[in-house]
Amino acid sequence: MRVALGVEYDGSQYFGWQRQKEVVSVQEKIEAALSSIANESIEIICAGRTDSGVHGTGQVVHFDTQSTRQMSAWALGVNAKLPDDIAIRWAKEVDDTFHARFSATARRYRYLIDNSEFRPGILRHGLSHYHYALDHQLMHQAAQLFVGEHDFTSFRALQCQAHSPVRTIEFVNVTRQGAFIIVDIKANAFLHHMVRNIVGTLIEIGQSNQKVEWVNELLALKDRKFAAPTSKPNGLYLVDVTYPEHYELPKPPMGPLFMLD
Amino acid sequence: MRVALGVEYDGSQYFGWQRQKEVVSVQEKIEAALSSIANESIEIICAGRTDSGVHGTGQVVHFDTQSTRQMSAWALGVNAKLPDDIAIRWAKEVDDTFHARFSATARRYRYLIDNSEFRPGILRHGLSHYHYALDHQLMHQAAQLFVGEHDFTSFRALQCQAHSPVRTIEFVNVTRQGAFIIVDIKANAFLHHMVRNIVGTLIEIGQSNQKVEWVNELLALKDRKFAAPTSKPNGLYLVDVTYPEHYELPKPPMGPLFMLD
Repeated sequence: MRVALGVEYDGSQYFGWQRQKEVVSVQEKIEAALSSIANESIEIICAGRTDSGVHGTGQVVHFDTQSTRQMSAWALGVNAKLPDDIAIRWAKEVDDTFHARFSATARRYRYLIDNSEFRPGILRHGLSHYHYALDHQLMHQAAQLFVGEHDFTSFRALQCQAHSPVRTIEFVNVTRQGAFIIVDIKANAFLHHMVRNIVGTLIEIGQSNQKVEWVNELLALKDRKFAAPTSKPNGLYLVDVTYPEHYELPKPPMGPLFMLD
Repeated sequence: MRVALGVEYDGSQYFGWQRQKEVVSVQEKIEAALSSIANESIEIICAGRTDSGVHGTGQVVHFDTQSTRQMSAWALGVNAKLPDDIAIRWAKEVDDTFHARFSATARRYRYLIDNSEFRPGILRHGLSHYHYALDHQLMHQAAQLFVGEHDFTSFRALQCQAHSPVRTIEFVNVTRQGAFIIVDIKANAFLHHMVRNIVGTLIEIGQSNQKVEWVNELLALKDRKFAAPTSKPNGLYLVDVTYPEHYELPKPPMGPLFMLD
């Protein structure tokens, strides 16, 4: 039987999603909890491996098991075995054609900037605090230049292992809610550090250190060293993964938290 | 010189606001940071002493000092000395008539319920999770029966030390944002556990365990043992304190977080 799960996690206490030998990962914790419920060793595959300190509200994984359990056991039962900063939000049996990574047609991230003068006390590991005033309208204008198919070489980490640097961005919206700026971005797929490098560049433009047109220059240069520094991981959430409709996966609110879709 | 401060804190790691001998408190941490910046022993007085596990986004304190510092030192400097779950959001010099507790004319709290089927991973200490479906419209209807001046004996903790059980509630609004239910309540002052006892009662009504009119019965009974259990502290935030306008205190967004005023 193949099962798909929706997963939410606060990544601040983990060295990223991916299982590693010497440090704690989200994947390892979920595999341990699932293996305990299944009474056999379970390995999971995810839609998008998030970096150290990055969070998820809409991560999707799948696994195969010989064990027969009710779907509620794969959610409620597994949650009882997980640390309290990782939670299964839904579980659904899927057919063998479903693959959390390869069936995904798009990913969506939200990046939360606390643009207050002084640092926050609430959700301090789940926000990126920038105290200098940011013009979110300039950021939104610049963000539109990323939309469409581009070579994102200037916005990929040097250690990125993807074959092609070409990705297609469906939208990037920058909005403000009080002291908070939200960057909402959806693409077919993302290169390593691509969201955080785009956000870093938008922050430079929001501070008026660079003009809106800088985005076009950077895209054309195809060289990582010219773009802005990578923004901090704290504010980044994988909020949604798109799959073909016939899988009929649950669609809970993306969040994070009480942010409206 | 008398200084007023706006304070935000995640109360989950503290045994409440008030300084105590053997356990860690928010007050103690702020006094230590202020004393270090002032280079003299500082004691603070707050608008509302929150319980263990309760949070603040709009707490207000005042203190007196012989030390002359720029207002930015009382915010940025003190923040550098505070643990990262407590933050000063503003600082302002006030005259000697200002008193954080006695000058306050009203307090406002927000209580956040995550009404999802499965528990959350994000902000898990800053939400109260109730998995059974709650009807927020019933809760709002019942909440209106609390508005006005009442004897709140049925909704005060047994150990409450206030002289009078009479308080005046200005409004109680219950709204839903996706899976989240928000109880927003403002009164001249609150008795011990009063917000959490009111919320606990609204939760019983939201589950249809009790009818809307139960609120009137409980108010009339004037006996704590008939009302619902106290709701969990995790979801409770002191978001605002009202002072006479002539003090011209800063009014940052109440939150918590990106919740709109």
